[in-house]
Amino acid sequence: MRVQRFQPTSYHRTFGTHEAALRIADGDVVETTTVDAAGRDAADEAVTDPGNPLTGPFWVEGAEPGDTLAVRLEVLRPNRRRGFSSASLAANVVDPEYLGELAPAAPPVDWDVDLASGVARLAGSVRGLAGLALPLAPMLGCIGVAPARAQAISSATSGPHGGNMDYRGVRAGTTLFLPVFTEGALLFVGDGHALQGAGELAGTGVEISFDVRFGVRLVKRRSIAWPRGESDDALFTLGNARPLDQATQHATTEMVRWLREAYDLDAAGAAIVIGQCAEFDLGNMYDPAFTMVCRLERALLAALAG
Amino acid sequence: MRVQRFQPTSYHRTFGTHEAALRIADGDVVETTTVDAAGRDAADEAVTDPGNPLTGPFWVEGAEPGDTLAVRLEVLRPNRRRGFSSASLAANVVDPEYLGELAPAAPPVDWDVDLASGVARLAGSVRGLAGLALPLAPMLGCIGVAPARAQAISSATSGPHGGNMDYRGVRAGTTLFLPVFTEGALLFVGDGHALQGAGELAGTGVEISFDVRFGVRLVKRRSIAWPRGESDDALFTLGNARPLDQATQHATTEMVRWLREAYDLDAAGAAIVIGQCAEFDLGNMYDPAFTMVCRLERALLAALAG
Amino acid sequence: MRVQRFQPTSYHRTFGTHEAALRIADGDVVETTTVDAAGRDAADEAVTDPGNPLTGPFWVEGAEPGDTLAVRLEVLRPNRRRGFSSASLAANVVDPEYLGELAPAAPPVDWDVDLASGVARLAGSVRGLAGLALPLAPMLGCIGVAPARAQAISSATSGPHGGNMDYRGVRAGTTLFLPVFTEGALLFVGDGHALQGAGELAGTGVEISFDVRFGVRLVKRRSIAWPRGESDDALFTLGNARPLDQATQHATTEMVRWLREAYDLDAAGAAIVIGQCAEFDLGNMYDPAFTMVCRLERALLAALAG
Amino acid sequence: MRVQRFQPTSYHRTFGTHEAALRIADGDVVETTTVDAAGRDAADEAVTDPGNPLTGPFWVEGAEPGDTLAVRLEVLRPNRRRGFSSASLAANVVDPEYLGELAPAAPPVDWDVDLASGVARLAGSVRGLAGLALPLAPMLGCIGVAPARAQAISSATSGPHGGNMDYRGVRAGTTLFLPVFTEGALLFVGDGHALQGAGELAGTGVEISFDVRFGVRLVKRRSIAWPRGESDDALFTLGNARPLDQATQHATTEMVRWLREAYDLDAAGAAIVIGQCAEFDLGNMYDPAFTMVCRLERALLAALAG
Repeated sequence: MRVQRFQPTSYHRTFGTHEAALRIADGDVVETTTVDAAGRDAADEAVTDPGNPLTGPFWVEGAEPGDTLAVRLEVLRPNRRRGFSSASLAANVVDPEYLGELAPAAPPVDWDVDLASGVARLAGSVRGLAGLALPLAPMLGCIGVAPARAQAISSATSGPHGGNMDYRGVRAGTTLFLPVFTEGALLFVGDGHALQGAGELAGTGVEISFDVRFGVRLVKRRSIAWPRGESDDALFTLGNARPLDQATQHATTEMVRWLREAYDLDAAGAAIVIGQCAEFDLGNMYDPAFTMVCRLERALLAALAG
Repeated sequence: MRVQRFQPTSYHRTFGTHEAALRIADGDVVETTTVDAAGRDAADEAVTDPGNPLTGPFWVEGAEPGDTLAVRLEVLRPNRRRGFSSASLAANVVDPEYLGELAPAAPPVDWDVDLASGVARLAGSVRGLAGLALPLAPMLGCIGVAPARAQAISSATSGPHGGNMDYRGVRAGTTLFLPVFTEGALLFVGDGHALQGAGELAGTGVEISFDVRFGVRLVKRRSIAWPRGESDDALFTLGNARPLDQATQHATTEMVRWLREAYDLDAAGAAIVIGQCAEFDLGNMYDPAFTMVCRLERALLAALAG
Repeated sequence: MRVQRFQPTSYHRTFGTHEAALRIADGDVVETTTVDAAGRDAADEAVTDPGNPLTGPFWVEGAEPGDTLAVRLEVLRPNRRRGFSSASLAANVVDPEYLGELAPAAPPVDWDVDLASGVARLAGSVRGLAGLALPLAPMLGCIGVAPARAQAISSATSGPHGGNMDYRGVRAGTTLFLPVFTEGALLFVGDGHALQGAGELAGTGVEISFDVRFGVRLVKRRSIAWPRGESDDALFTLGNARPLDQATQHATTEMVRWLREAYDLDAAGAAIVIGQCAEFDLGNMYDPAFTMVCRLERALLAALAG
Repeated sequence: MRVQRFQPTSYHRTFGTHEAALRIADGDVVETTTVDAAGRDAADEAVTDPGNPLTGPFWVEGAEPGDTLAVRLEVLRPNRRRGFSSASLAANVVDPEYLGELAPAAPPVDWDVDLASGVARLAGSVRGLAGLALPLAPMLGCIGVAPARAQAISSATSGPHGGNMDYRGVRAGTTLFLPVFTEGALLFVGDGHALQGAGELAGTGVEISFDVRFGVRLVKRRSIAWPRGESDDALFTLGNARPLDQATQHATTEMVRWLREAYDLDAAGAAIVIGQCAEFDLGNMYDPAFTMVCRLERALLAALAG
């Protein structure tokens, strides 16, 4: 196992076929950093434009369209103390008739991210929230590869290539599987959150810069249609689209495919397992494309294998 | 506390302003039964037409429009051994382009619901699922009151009055709050599931008849816009609409109202709590109206109260 | 042909299995009146509660579930001078982020509906709209039958039974076809508009009371899934659901069925005709269910028959 | 007025910040050609990959972000005889439960596009459609500029930059207004249809190669949020998103802005005009993003100006 350290000096705001920032090989581990969504680094200095700047892309030797890239997230660690979040709900997540009750929008708030005690403390004074301290649950808002058809897609949205999915399950210990659309795959990471509610309904998590360590593995000639993931507890698939109905269709369909490939189930078997066991998590519900996640607990799947 | 026993002899297939089956009072506990979605009872005999037949309505003395009805679910217990479920995914929950891969639809399957061991065992032989046994998690698919405007709404869908929400959190130990639209409130229950995956994506849970015990409490002159619930662990709100985006808007908006009423939060405070702490569960995604649930863990809210 | 006159004295606010207001027979013509959406009659007096009060139901002798009811609209004529409309767009039809630019909501405005000159003139003074006069195009916002399953559905929404579809094509000269779900069919009409933009995006047309004359014909043992219509120029089908995507699916599917039944087309033929010739009109986009209309010009269909 | 002729030798399949194919100036007229959606040219030879290949980009001297580009379509003329269309409806435009009735998909069909007689005649034999001849109504399926944020967006979808909108109103005589996001604007055109039904529900129009002639005008320091258009008869705005509800919100909001800027209307005036006069047309309903068009007849707007 080779560990490659990479300190970015420039960033991208699209997932696209950009020049490789670092070339890595199947089995490599990468240690790098990400700036926060506003382009601020570990020193809390603005080093690039805001809007989910991405670290990368990492060119994976031998990756070709039709392969799958497995990214094992080993370390996702805030590397400074100040985080920030929005204090206003996104306009699209409340009843249109109620929006007037939420105006005017409040300014963002800061958080003190304390790794030692494992919490983020709300700074400043918000009515009713004095001393609010929430458990840290670091996650990557953005992870993905270069999209199909030589597109360059904004890091403020998502698609089959991954992107700004804002799923709380993209945390240390998870392995994420991404479809490869271009030679080298071209992996990008960014938009770390110290913690975040499901849906990212305020339009931000607790935004912060990260130290990141991940390992890559290349699965040759195995294609997937949507990102997939594995944690110690569960398997999951991610669908990205609007409305949520369609995101859910994508995630469910991808889980059907996975069950049919990996567990020798037919359509009826997949329907029984999904119908009686599936759970769904909400990823981003703020971007142009929303994210829904279909999840199955490993405990159940062990039963299947038996 | 008065316990009233009620054995239904007829059933409704709409939530509507129907004649009271039993008159109960604030504080009463009711012991009754529900038939399964197909109209079969504890003896597995067809006693009424299929299509989510409902037990009730229960007229609550003193309930008036603008009140809230609190229903504490005490016992939800399958009262026979045979359950059944669909073995086909609903057509609307997979990618349209993939539907051809799932045809033809497979016939329903039976389950042996074993209260002693706490599992449902799949009967018959489905490829890859031999011996599948899933933990019981009994829940009510249908619970609601007579809707506004003297409507009569099918028990195959949902709305502000509740209805066929198919939420796994509607289980013993939960208190559900329902808006009162008509004199007497007119509570209905039905559609018990021994267990069910989120979304009820196969169009059924493990359908079975139930013994049900619940207590009612009337909250005078407190109105809510959408159903709410409380369990030992969490508070939640349920939004019912299509697409899921709108169901989510309803649930989120209702949670904002709850936080503002009960926790002295302003719009910014509610946005911070929901933005960084909310979780979402998927209820029914098969009916004309879908259900999304916004959930907040009590552990957090205790912090707010302090 | 028998002409029956019916002057309503009470009104309904649901499409439901209500007691017949008048019994009519296949081939009868009915002359009646409708109050406006606010419950005001030809004398501009409030005679019933607001909220799309309906005239009817008309019991059609011999109508049974599985039949189709054809309603030929002969006269739809405003029967007073004052109309009114909203001066605010519905909250759900503009970008959520833009809603703040439209607040506060403006009060409704009156119109002088002048049958002699064929226009409605905006009363009062609205900036930039002095002297605005729009051509009359009278239409019925509400038309439908009692829904399936003994439901009673608010006249503020729509479904397979018709309802508050707010389609500008429901005008004199049009024949509307409605599925029969209950014995007697139970036809209701109401919510006349002197004119209206597509979508009813302000939540109202120019609301006014009507004299209405229509003829009914019963088509035995021919069932349709969604309302259909015929005018001198076109055939159309109406789908009612949210989001518009689903309403469009319903309308398109119903048109496919019609083409296959009536024009001896197979799936490929229907796809070619719809793919290259269909037009779509937007009905109501304000209610819980939206309406989309799939339309084919008769000129084309004549070609097919040849 | 300068006329520039441009014969493309290579094509793009994204709207992006690609190298200029031709530099043009404010006031120039361009004569060029487009290949069909499958990459076939006037000689019906495959000269590039399929998937809506685009001609361009045309760099407009002096165009900067925040400007608006006006493109007057002067000539859109099929330049060969053979067109083709799909004979299967897109899977997403019919009820999911009905899809099985449409399988298996039929192969595409050819059309004889006859400019002299002004019709396209269906070639081959499709049941019930013998001799079908439809009036030509040539339109551009793809027109747009380089998107914001240096994105490169597939020519199989659409956005604020325009794209594959498949709107029948994009025909000769129309002037389309596009927001400028990058220096030079970078205009692309492609995907000509000899005719097409609204929504492009079969996934194609009658696809064919075109001779195209258009003039450009640069409107400095006037920004628009979504594409707009003017024809002899009407003004219109185009919203691109999924679901149709959101596309409609974009189109309606853009029309409100236009009315407020150009006709001295306030929010109430815009609501009255749109509420009582707007019409909606369906553009593409097949791509990842759908297109809805809000349209106002000029006859009315003349009244406003008076």
